[in-house]
Amino acid sequence: MTALDERTPPPLAAVGTTVWLTGLPSAGKTTLATALAARLQDPHVELLDGDEVREFLSKGLGFSRADRDTNVLRIGWVAATLAKHGVLVLASVISPFAQTRAQVRALHEGRGAGFLEIHVATPVEVCSERDVKGLYARQRAGELAGLTGVDAPYEAPTAPDARVPAHEQSVEQSVEQLLALLRARGLVAGGLA
Amino acid sequence: MTALDERTPPPLAAVGTTVWLTGLPSAGKTTLATALAARLQDPHVELLDGDEVREFLSKGLGFSRADRDTNVLRIGWVAATLAKHGVLVLASVISPFAQTRAQVRALHEGRGAGFLEIHVATPVEVCSERDVKGLYARQRAGELAGLTGVDAPYEAPTAPDARVPAHEQSVEQSVEQLLALLRARGLVAGGLA
Repeated sequence: MTALDERTPPPLAAVGTTVWLTGLPSAGKTTLATALAARLQDPHVELLDGDEVREFLSKGLGFSRADRDTNVLRIGWVAATLAKHGVLVLASVISPFAQTRAQVRALHEGRGAGFLEIHVATPVEVCSERDVKGLYARQRAGELAGLTGVDAPYEAPTAPDARVPAHEQSVEQSVEQLLALLRARGLVAGGLA
Repeated sequence: MTALDERTPPPLAAVGTTVWLTGLPSAGKTTLATALAARLQDPHVELLDGDEVREFLSKGLGFSRADRDTNVLRIGWVAATLAKHGVLVLASVISPFAQTRAQVRALHEGRGAGFLEIHVATPVEVCSERDVKGLYARQRAGELAGLTGVDAPYEAPTAPDARVPAHEQSVEQSVEQLLALLRARGLVAGGLA
């Protein structure tokens, strides 16, 4: 075991909240979450990336509606458990279904944790051009079926806490937009660099 | 969203650590974890019960060696992520395999979180009489196979951080034993009621 002082994080910031970034593949969710985390410089920020977490929490699950829901709810459960204890969770998860996102919100409310639904609203034409992981190309080539926003549904949030036009502004501007929201809700200190 | 003050937990106690209670079915792991949590009276304690968590995190997994390991590692991953942020996690998980428990310890060390392996060492004869969930009876009746400690292996820890003889002392005495260990390691305040 390491010495106490090395292991001890500073006390948690005021509030536990999950910032849930939903949007199409290649919309810029993880880029935004990573940039926001870097800006916050807070040891009590936890990044939960849908793809990465899937590897650990949901190995063996596929991309059927039921399996997608199970994966999203598992990430939501972990996020809510962390946020309940004061962690600021930045979760980037496609989470295509409105009802499942509502369940994730309910998990947070049931634990007294905050929840912000953020729609990273890059349109499919732009995502398809960016195609960070080559998914759109594989779909066009017939090597992949069930791509969210193309041949699988994406239910855009009708009343998100914020909508980020990530295709019309820089990453820095998107970070500022979310910081302003977090400050307005009292979820981070106002004096952030 | 609730008001800020209602949602805000107090700052975390000093240290993030997982107290990992391993032992046979009906050894008294969950009873001890629950009693310890009640005694600690700390909002930053999180109980992770193997059976309960299995329902959320690992639905569909069975009781093969591979599936058991996956379940234990998932709980370990969640515990380590919580402990990293300063939560005191009380995890009661049969976790029969030494190697898997070592992996869980490594997950914690990799995140700078503390980890205490506690062997709840009630022998199988006593567990089998208690049989809180009727598992031993079902095994005897031939309705269940692969019961840890009977017809499936349990690898008792050879060098646990503590061994709790839960069959030879009261729950209160076991709680005191763990509190003394936590205090000795500097993991809870000394002035606990």
